[in-house]
Formats: sequence, C-alpha cells, structure tokens
Amino acid sequence: MQMYDIICKKKTNKELSTEEINWLVKEFTAGNISDAQMTAFLMAVYFNSMTERETLDLTLAMEHSGDVLDLSSIDKITVDKHSTGGVGDKTTLFIAPTVASLGVKVPKMSGRGLGHTGGTIDKLESIEGFNTSLSFDEFSDVVKSVGCAVVGQTGKLTPADKKIYALRDVTATVDSIPLIASSIMSKKLATGNSCILLDVKCGSGAFMKDKESAKALADTMVKIGNNAGRNCAALITDMTKPLGRAIGNSLEVIEAAEALKGKEKGEFFDLCIELSANMLSLAGKGTPEECAVMAKEAVESGKAFNKFKEMISAQGGSPEVVEDYKLFKQPKFIHEVYADKSGIVTCNDCEAIGLVSLSLGAGRTVKDAPIDHSAGVYLDKLCGERVEKGEKIATLYSSIDCDMAKIGERFSSVYQITDTNLV
Amino acid sequence: MQMYDIICKKKTNKELSTEEINWLVKEFTAGNISDAQMTAFLMAVYFNSMTERETLDLTLAMEHSGDVLDLSSIDKITVDKHSTGGVGDKTTLFIAPTVASLGVKVPKMSGRGLGHTGGTIDKLESIEGFNTSLSFDEFSDVVKSVGCAVVGQTGKLTPADKKIYALRDVTATVDSIPLIASSIMSKKLATGNSCILLDVKCGSGAFMKDKESAKALADTMVKIGNNAGRNCAALITDMTKPLGRAIGNSLEVIEAAEALKGKEKGEFFDLCIELSANMLSLAGKGTPEECAVMAKEAVESGKAFNKFKEMISAQGGSPEVVEDYKLFKQPKFIHEVYADKSGIVTCNDCEAIGLVSLSLGAGRTVKDAPIDHSAGVYLDKLCGERVEKGEKIATLYSSIDCDMAKIGERFSSVYQITDTNLV
Repeated sequence: MQMYDIICKKKTNKELSTEEINWLVKEFTAGNISDAQMTAFLMAVYFNSMTERETLDLTLAMEHSGDVLDLSSIDKITVDKHSTGGVGDKTTLFIAPTVASLGVKVPKMSGRGLGHTGGTIDKLESIEGFNTSLSFDEFSDVVKSVGCAVVGQTGKLTPADKKIYALRDVTATVDSIPLIASSIMSKKLATGNSCILLDVKCGSGAFMKDKESAKALADTMVKIGNNAGRNCAALITDMTKPLGRAIGNSLEVIEAAEALKGKEKGEFFDLCIELSANMLSLAGKGTPEECAVMAKEAVESGKAFNKFKEMISAQGGSPEVVEDYKLFKQPKFIHEVYADKSGIVTCNDCEAIGLVSLSLGAGRTVKDAPIDHSAGVYLDKLCGERVEKGEKIATLYSSIDCDMAKIGERFSSVYQITDTNLV
Repeated sequence: MQMYDIICKKKTNKELSTEEINWLVKEFTAGNISDAQMTAFLMAVYFNSMTERETLDLTLAMEHSGDVLDLSSIDKITVDKHSTGGVGDKTTLFIAPTVASLGVKVPKMSGRGLGHTGGTIDKLESIEGFNTSLSFDEFSDVVKSVGCAVVGQTGKLTPADKKIYALRDVTATVDSIPLIASSIMSKKLATGNSCILLDVKCGSGAFMKDKESAKALADTMVKIGNNAGRNCAALITDMTKPLGRAIGNSLEVIEAAEALKGKEKGEFFDLCIELSANMLSLAGKGTPEECAVMAKEAVESGKAFNKFKEMISAQGGSPEVVEDYKLFKQPKFIHEVYADKSGIVTCNDCEAIGLVSLSLGAGRTVKDAPIDHSAGVYLDKLCGERVEKGEKIATLYSSIDCDMAKIGERFSSVYQITDTNLV
C-alpha cells in the first residue's frame, strides 16, 4: 500500500477500504508515514469528509492503536459521559456520584483544561490530597467499592489519536466532523464503558457554534458508538453562556457541592439531572423521565452528596472541604463588578468569559502549565436576570499578579446589561 | 504572521494578501515553516484554488527566491519556449536554431526527462561532447555569437519552487492549476527572457488530459506572463499520440535533424513551424502567418540546419553526427513490430508508449539516474496511416538487458491496428 495512493483516493472523493484506513493509522503511528503526507490526507478529509463506514474504521483503528481497557471486572454495565467542552462545565462532579448513588457504576476518565475550557481533573485537584493519577487497579477498586471514580487517563490509550491530533492542531485540520468524532470516540471506546452519553455543547462558548454542526457531530458519534456495540446517546446542550455561576476550579467544586446539597437550583441543576437521567436510562434503569425522578430523589435524600464525599475520601481528599468551603485555598485578590445601569444581564461571547477566567490564572494556554485553583469568575447575576444600577453582577478571584480592573472591564464588555426596553 | 492563520484563510476560501504569500514562500524556503503546515496550505489550494492576483504573487515570490537572470546583455528581445511535456517532443531542437537563424536570440534552458516524458538536455547529450552545463557567461557568449544555446539550469534559480515542488510530488498536490502555472512561470520569469511561448500539451500522453484543463492552465500562465511584463502567448497542442516518429534520445535528435533538412514533413514539422512562427511573432517579426513563411524559408534555404550545426559545435559537440547518424552510439538490441492484420494504426494510450521507451532504457524513473541514449521507439507507421498485414509498424531499440519481446507486446496493446470497417 502507498500513502500517495490513499491521499489521491481521498482527494478525489473515493471511499477508502478498511484495510487502507487500518494501514495508514498503523504506519503513521509507527513513524513510517511523514507528517506532510498525513496532513495531505487530513486536509483532504476536511474537504471531502468520510463516509459512516470510513469514520467507524478510523475510530476503531485509533482505539486499537494502544491499550484497550477491560472494565468487565467492575460490572457488566458501566456508564461514561463525555462533554465536548465549554465554560463552567462542572457536570461530571454532580453526575458521577448521583448516578453511582443509584447503583450504576461510573468509572470516569477526564481531562485537563486548555484555553478557554476547564478540565474536571484540574477542578478535583483543587481539593487538597485528591489523587487523579490512580493505577488501573486502584481506579477499579474505588469504582467497585464507591461506585464512581474520576481520574486522568490511565494506561497508554489511543497513541494514534494523540499523534494525529497533535498534527491536526498545527495544520488547521481540527474542525472536521469525522475527525473530531473519531478522535473523541476512539478514546471513549478504548476506555471500555458499555454505555456512553455524549453532551455536545453548542454556542459561542463551545467548539460547535451552531445547532446544525452540533447535531451532525452528535449523530456521527452516536452512530460510531452504536456500530461499535456500545449503548450510546447524545444531548445537544446550550453553551451560548457559561454553565451555572462559577468558572474556575475550586469555585466550580463548590457550585457542584451546592447543587448536590439541593441548595443551588436553576439551569445547571436541571442539566445535571437531565444528564444523570440519560446515563441511568442508557444503563437500563428506566425511561429518561423515570430516571430523572430517581436522580432528583437521590439529591433530595442526600444520597448523591454522600456519594460525592465518599469518592473524595476514596481518592485521598478530605470531604470536609465540601462542608466548609473556607478549607479550599483562598484567592489573594478579589475584584467585584457592579452594574453601571439597570437592565437585563446578557452574555454576547461565552468563550470570552472563559478567557477572562484564564487571564485570572484559572486555566492554561499551553499543555502541562500550572494553574491557580483558587482563581476564576463567580456570576452573582445570571444571564436573563434583571439587575438594578449599583448591584453586584460578578466577582473575579485571582492569586496571580494581574490587572484585575482591566480584566474586569473586559468581562463587562461581554457580560453586559441590556436596556429592558430593548428586550 | 502565523502559518496557521494563512492555512485557515485558504481553507475557508478567503483571499491571501501579497504580504502573506511573500511571507510564506520566504519562510518555507528558509526552513521556518514545517512540511506539514505547507502541505496543509497546498492541499487547501488544490480544493479552493487561488485568485489571479494570488497566483501572480506566488509566482513572483518564487521567482525572486533565488537568482534572477539578466539577459539584457545578450539582446533587448530574447525568446523562450516551454512545453508542459509529452512523448517524443523534440521541438526545441528544431525551433531554437530556426528562430535564431532569423535573427531572434533564443537563450534556452531545458530540463531532463523523468517518467514517461523525455528531456531536451538528455536528447542533446546523445551527441558526444555536447556540453549542457555551461556557466552563465559561456551560455551568454554562445547565444551572442550563434544566436541560440540550449543548456541545463544555470545559477540557483527558484529554490522556493524546487522545495515546494518536491513536497507537492509526495503529497499528491501537483495537479492544481495555480500551483502548476506558478511553478512553471516562476522558472520562466527567473530565466529572464522578454518573450515566452507556452506549448500546453493536451491528451493521454500529457499532464493535462482534456482540452478544458489545458485551456485553463494556458490562460493562467499567459496572464501571469503578461502581468509580469513579459510578452507571452500559448498554444494548446495534441498529445493523444506521440509527436513525430521517434521517442528516445538520439532517435529524436535524428528526427529533428531530418526535419531541419526538410526531409521529414508531417505533423511534427507543421508543429515546429507553428511554434517557430509564434516565437518570431512574439519577438516582433510580424504576424504568425508572415513568420510561418519566414520559418519555412529558413528550413528550405538550409539556414536553420546550419544554425543547428553551429550550435552543436559551439557547445562542444561534433556537427558531423547530424550528417552521418551512424556516429551516434548504436543500440545493442533491435526488435521489430509487424502488423498481424491490415487496418488503420491507432494509439489508445500515448503515455504508455512513453513508458515503453522508458522500459527500453531511454528514460529514468528517479531523478539523476543514468539513461541509455541509443534506446527508444521508432514509429515506422504513424497513427491514422493504413497498414497491410505483415508490414513493419515500429522498431524498438535498447542496449540494456530487457525482455524486448514482452515490451513489444505491451507496445502492440496500445499502438493498435483498427479494422477499417470500423473507422
């Protein structure tokens, strides 16, 4: 087989065979195909896309390029959730314990934040002592005893995806639905869960800016999951504004804890219930509606919050921190943002709010850079809420040397007050 | 400037600025842009093409990436001809002396053969002692005294094009009209001639298989040439069958000599007159029709053939070889192909005939490989001619150890005899 011929086929919109896709993934991972030839192929895919069959083959080839986890010793049915990333998305912290408290195992592998989006692993590490680097056996043991665990990637999963993604990242070939879908799903399949719920974010704070492309991505991923023998579904959820009130690591853990305690209701709580319900339903616990009732009861009874504390404890953290928030590392600097007029709060650029949080030290612009767990943004007023002149809209937190007044101005330019007459 | 942003612009079909194109050519040539990023750009150009302005900018940037020759010391008006390559195309051997014999200077730089197409430099080197590696001053002196010279590339011309072409060659990004046109024209502009005639070949033996794409390439190149201040025109000529009777180096020199002597008429001779006439016309010698009369007279009077011998002599070869063809190195093996039925000769794959000649040793599959100057194919019968069963159709020549009977069969499968009833 020749890479040149494979590029020509894709370039002229001919369907590649399973053998050709397996060969190109294997040889590229082994270093036998140049970055330039792989890029030619990837850009041709950007323009000509891939068929459903090709996309499945690419996913399976990447899945099997490294370790493939076997979670059957934990349970026959285990459930995973994947979000395509957004601003203030701390749902995993809520849903993992909630679903686990209802008897469904959630062995969850999460990532770190990069750019305007945060990562669940970073959020949990704001809890002192919380260990996200468990071995597979330790991870497995926590899930068996507690019902859920959230860790970083264990084992050498999907090296082909890692190598291809690094190349896509510098050659502007990220934004292709079959390439995004196969990248996400190869990791999800390799992680070994039998049920996968996909949360495809849509809007100015998400990778998918419009409903149409979000739906196309969701459909492609669900087809891959189901064709690969998993029980898979997707929700398309709003990311035109941050999710909930908190953006930043310990701030988000606190918000999740408040929601698990039943103290913080609203859109964030509603989405957590919807996600939990769909995960439970995929795992065979009933219809999503029946499961939503169960999930709400788990919160009201305190079972879900207790499970969260159990998980924190099992992974080496002190659960007291989610009872007494002062035990979190405290930020050095606080900057409050007040309304300069009365009106309705609106967000005209969700990604920009993620970038404000990044400037405060809550995120990283390059991989593996350290972050400030105490930094972030707290939205005292949510989008759509009425505010009177002089009322507090938001609070910015940081422990790094940054110009908070200037960052506050940038925040105000995207988290605006609209004249009510115009609404 | 960031290469990533330039890739994104081209990928989303936005027009690049002159500054962006200059930057990318300069930085890629300097080794500051990776092959992968450059490939992403090239594949995006394959899909989204380039505007007339972008194509001109790319050409000029590549032209100025290395030496730019100044031929003004030779003459104010000098004329060049470029063929996009075909099978049996030995027109340069005819037109350079013919045009020069009429007082127009032809400082010609030519290439070597690769794959199914031959190269003028290889053909001339079948003449013992003929030196195609002249310094610029030697080249210039020969053109000044004789009126024409044919050499390989002198100086360090268009290094950007060389580097980009090498990448296109392995990433399947050759077949893009703006990329082909800018590659050819950057070299033609850097060579410094004031007049450029383009011979765009069209058909199964050419790079452009159909009239439409040949016309698009011709138009693009003529626009570049004229916009760059040169006097430029193009002819689209037939390459559905080999040009003339000879394919192979010394065989082609002999055919050109026969045509210059006025002994071999037909399509090859007619094309040589048409090309010469258009070159003379570009140089201001009259209309193409008037110039065609002049070119024919130059042949009939012996002026053109004498000029050819003068050039051979000035470049170190012995002109006797074109009087007594036995002085050429003779092939070791000869294989004759006879008609197995009566009918009309037809060629159904011109490129395949070039490949037959290649198998006999007349060409090279990789750059810089040695070739057999005596090898090749001679078409005793031309396409469209009637042949009787048992008549000789063609003769194959070789000095290398190859299965001539088998190559002869391959030749017969594409150079066929069609039943006259069907014609």
